[in-house]
Amino acid sequence: MELLENRISAEGRVLPGNIIKIDGFLNHQVDIRLMRELAREFRRLFPEKEINKILTVEASGIALAAVTALEFDVPMVFVKKAKSDNIEGGLYQSDIFSYTYKRKVTLLLAKQWLTPNDNVLIIDDFLANGEAMRGVIEIVGQSGAKLTGVGIAVEKGFQPGGARLREQGVNLKSLAVIDGTEGGKIMFRKQ
Amino acid sequence: MELLENRISAEGRVLPGNIIKIDGFLNHQVDIRLMRELAREFRRLFPEKEINKILTVEASGIALAAVTALEFDVPMVFVKKAKSDNIEGGLYQSDIFSYTYKRKVTLLLAKQWLTPNDNVLIIDDFLANGEAMRGVIEIVGQSGAKLTGVGIAVEKGFQPGGARLREQGVNLKSLAVIDGTEGGKIMFRKQ
Repeated sequence: MELLENRISAEGRVLPGNIIKIDGFLNHQVDIRLMRELAREFRRLFPEKEINKILTVEASGIALAAVTALEFDVPMVFVKKAKSDNIEGGLYQSDIFSYTYKRKVTLLLAKQWLTPNDNVLIIDDFLANGEAMRGVIEIVGQSGAKLTGVGIAVEKGFQPGGARLREQGVNLKSLAVIDGTEGGKIMFRKQ
Repeated sequence: MELLENRISAEGRVLPGNIIKIDGFLNHQVDIRLMRELAREFRRLFPEKEINKILTVEASGIALAAVTALEFDVPMVFVKKAKSDNIEGGLYQSDIFSYTYKRKVTLLLAKQWLTPNDNVLIIDDFLANGEAMRGVIEIVGQSGAKLTGVGIAVEKGFQPGGARLREQGVNLKSLAVIDGTEGGKIMFRKQ
C-alpha cells in the first residue's frame, strides 16, 4: 500500500537490532486518519461478508483494530496479556514468548466472546517473529471459530513470522512488507 | 448518558469486591457502534476547538480513545505501561499503583508526542481509584501541554478517583457514574 510505504519511508527510523520505529503514526502516537485508510484497504482485501468479529491482541494493535471494526461494522475483541484479578475462569489460553519483554507471556480470551459461530479477521499493527500471532491463532483454534484472514499493517519480512503463517496456509495480507534496510533506507517487498 | 446506562443495566454483572464487569461491550469485547455514540457525546461535552490530541493509557482505553480521535479528527496518543526494549530515552514518566495488578507500574510517554503546544483531552473507559489517571495527568503536567478535560465512559462513583479529580479542578465528565448496587441492581448517579 503506497500511502503506508511512503509514510514509513518519510518518518520511520531504523535502530540497532533491526528495530524499526514508526511510533509517530502507528503505535505510540496514532494517526487516526491514516488508520481509517488502512481499515478501508483491509475491507477491500477481505471482502468476505461472513466476517462478524475483528480480533486483536493488546495493546498497540487495538487502535487499528477498533477503526477496522468500525469499517466492517462488527464488534472488536482483544486478547489480553497475563492475568489480572478482573478476569474470571472460562478462558482460552496460549503461552507465547514475548521478544518485547524477553519473557513468557500468557494470552487470555474469555470464552464467551469467541465461539464456533464466529468468523474472525485478526488485525495487528506489526508482524515480526509472529509469536503473539501464533498465540492468537491458537486461541481461535481453541474456540472453534473460523479464521478468515489476518491483516497486518507492517510486516518485517526479514523475520520469520509472515513466512511461517503463509506456509501454514493462513490467508495473511500485509499492507507493507519491509524486507530490510540499505544504507539507512527502508526497502519494501514488491506485492 | 441514557444509552450507556441502559446497556450497563442490561449486560453488566456485579462481582465480589465491587468489580463491575461490562466486558461484553466496553473492555474485552468492544461494541464499536456504541463507542462511536460515546465519542459523539464527548465531542458535544468538549466542544473546545483547540483540542488537538486525544490521550489515553493502554490497554483497554485505546479502542474508545481511537474512535473519539476519529470523531475529533485529531491524532491519538497512548501512554505505555512499564518498560520494553522498544522504548528509548526521552520519556515522561510517572509511577502509579495498579489495583488491577497489585503492584507498582511505571507509565511512559515519549516526549516528542506531547509538548507545550498541545491541547489535550484524556479519554478512558473506566475511572475507579484514579491511580492511572493521576499518572497520566502528571505526565501532561511534565509535558507542559494544556489539559482541557477528561472524558470517562464509566466512573465508579463509590471509589475516590472522580471526587479527587473534581476537587483538583479537573474538567471531568463521565458518561455514566455508578454510585453502587442495591440487591444486584446497578444504581446510577443523576447528572
